[in-house]
Amino acid sequence: MLIGVPRESAAGETRVAVTPETAKKFKAAGHTVRVERGAGLAAACTDAAYEAAGAELTDAAGALGAELVLKVQRPSAAELAQMKPGSVLVGMLNPFDAEGLQAMAQAGLTAFALEAAPRTTRAQSLDVLSSQANIAGYKAVLLAAHHYPKLFPMLMTAAGTIKAARVVVLGVGVAGLQAIATAKRLGAVIEASDVRPSVKEQVESLGAKFIDVPYETAEEKEAAEGVGGYARPMPPSWLARQAAEVAKRVAQADIVISTALIPGRPAPTLVSEEMVKSMKAGSVIVDIAAGRGPGGVGGNCPLTVANQTVQVHGVTIVGETNLPATVPADSSALYARNVLDFLKLIVDKDAKLSLPTDDDIVTACLMAQGGEVKRK
Amino acid sequence: MLIGVPRESAAGETRVAVTPETAKKFKAAGHTVRVERGAGLAAACTDAAYEAAGAELTDAAGALGAELVLKVQRPSAAELAQMKPGSVLVGMLNPFDAEGLQAMAQAGLTAFALEAAPRTTRAQSLDVLSSQANIAGYKAVLLAAHHYPKLFPMLMTAAGTIKAARVVVLGVGVAGLQAIATAKRLGAVIEASDVRPSVKEQVESLGAKFIDVPYETAEEKEAAEGVGGYARPMPPSWLARQAAEVAKRVAQADIVISTALIPGRPAPTLVSEEMVKSMKAGSVIVDIAAGRGPGGVGGNCPLTVANQTVQVHGVTIVGETNLPATVPADSSALYARNVLDFLKLIVDKDAKLSLPTDDDIVTACLMAQGGEVKRK
Repeated sequence: MLIGVPRESAAGETRVAVTPETAKKFKAAGHTVRVERGAGLAAACTDAAYEAAGAELTDAAGALGAELVLKVQRPSAAELAQMKPGSVLVGMLNPFDAEGLQAMAQAGLTAFALEAAPRTTRAQSLDVLSSQANIAGYKAVLLAAHHYPKLFPMLMTAAGTIKAARVVVLGVGVAGLQAIATAKRLGAVIEASDVRPSVKEQVESLGAKFIDVPYETAEEKEAAEGVGGYARPMPPSWLARQAAEVAKRVAQADIVISTALIPGRPAPTLVSEEMVKSMKAGSVIVDIAAGRGPGGVGGNCPLTVANQTVQVHGVTIVGETNLPATVPADSSALYARNVLDFLKLIVDKDAKLSLPTDDDIVTACLMAQGGEVKRK
Repeated sequence: MLIGVPRESAAGETRVAVTPETAKKFKAAGHTVRVERGAGLAAACTDAAYEAAGAELTDAAGALGAELVLKVQRPSAAELAQMKPGSVLVGMLNPFDAEGLQAMAQAGLTAFALEAAPRTTRAQSLDVLSSQANIAGYKAVLLAAHHYPKLFPMLMTAAGTIKAARVVVLGVGVAGLQAIATAKRLGAVIEASDVRPSVKEQVESLGAKFIDVPYETAEEKEAAEGVGGYARPMPPSWLARQAAEVAKRVAQADIVISTALIPGRPAPTLVSEEMVKSMKAGSVIVDIAAGRGPGGVGGNCPLTVANQTVQVHGVTIVGETNLPATVPADSSALYARNVLDFLKLIVDKDAKLSLPTDDDIVTACLMAQGGEVKRK
């Protein structure tokens, strides 16, 4: 097939859907790969590297006009206008954006949103939420360390001892676990909280302490266990007790990394303005849910401002909304491998499109086909 | 004594010479401490914290007009004009700045530059070069990680493995050792180079590899061993061989941290433009010698631009000239303890000034007294 790789046009997007590494594999499998000039530049993938991998360089129209277009973010209206009806699009297309899906359907695309893949063992190698959350968790801690006016590790010097930073991680999914691991590497003392009791063991295995909030009713327990690996919203009674427990730890923390996201719903408020006020001068909050709070404002903290770093009540709040894009080479490397693995499900050994109807991953990811929104 | 703590006025200076911790100790020892309002704000030391420690808040004139003025950087002309003849000044006054010393002498100050302390065991607790270099080495690695488009640690993920970053540290003084330790914490693979063979063991004890450059003549060996813990400039023959060996490692590196400084001389060129060209796209150089290259331009790399982060030949070069000021709370905490320990040498138990004439540390630090430059 003719595979097109446009340069991402969304503001702040530095990733690319195909790297020289995966371009070489597509080429070896019999595909033609056309990469828009400069598409990988921000991700340290030079045009020369794509050419050396056997890809052809082209312009935006050349990349968007291909049979199979591989993207990071969903196409803009201008990009959709350059795509051919009947062509296949694979990317992070935002399955909860009904309007966006409608636009792709109207453009006649067969569109696959990789975020919609089931969280099964077979789908792990193409799980873009995990691959990108991993990087987000790492970078969240580095940003915290960047803004924190002290050192992370304990240091014993001739001028006396410096205490290790106290880090509280809220939400222990893939991002939270990598945040714990990275903060631990840097020498911090870490406490972590999550609504799923099952993560306690993982938290402890990384050398952090789990903030326990016991369940008092059966309803609380059922909600905590959730469906499909994601927690369901917890009952207000439990949330109130958790907030109280977390508030105590946050008041003593130097760094808070909040990572609580529920797909298709606003991010829960875990760090209230009162809690921010209780923190020490110079403390740092990195809110991975920035821009995803109620109404698309705030994040896990209502004071978070999307894409800004603000100082409120003496606390620095980092609201970066696209953390993986701040580590573009490795986030692209992992994303490109996710895309490569997904394509193995929809392309046959003769490098032709072959859409199975009985594959749970393909079915789950299919968002639009034949002019219609297909999302389940 | 009446101790004044002005707010630092130099651009980018966020540190403060007295923290609430040391203010409390001065107060307990019988001193009166007057802190300019907002002096510690950037270092997360609030006015309220100083007041709680028993200090009084004042304005710039109140702080600069004290009998004993404690500063971070040497006073500006405007600050000197507000200081009283006969008063005592302690700070990082730059012993190699003849013009600056002359200005302090003319202002009638008794001025002590802490950077001039001998590098002896007894002076360790007031060694400002070490305390600040320690923080510079830490932050240099964090800045590298911040700008590097990949992750530092090796990660094994469902989407494949990410390789650990390769870090080369040039110059293994206090900053270089902390850079190695920090990069190691973050999971990098590290090689380090220095003109002093004695550091090999320290490098290896931190888990890094030492880049050996054998000496071929007695002259080379003598120069390498140096005086007072500092290397003397090496002969050109050896520098050429070292440059060749380092060049090979730099070409393969993802990150270069260069830390080579020789007090009172321009920083040596360790990373040439050719070497930068040999590096991979997306690599990062953090040049701790920024602004201290020949003629005050460049650093250990001639492409470094003081106080800027530039992209040259696909490589990001970070030219931050005051790294300790980017970690202001802990750099102030250590610096303030250095100052506290120095004052023990020049203040008696009745909290009165008592300048010993037979103390090697006091003598070495004395820069101006009685209208004359005293520097040895």
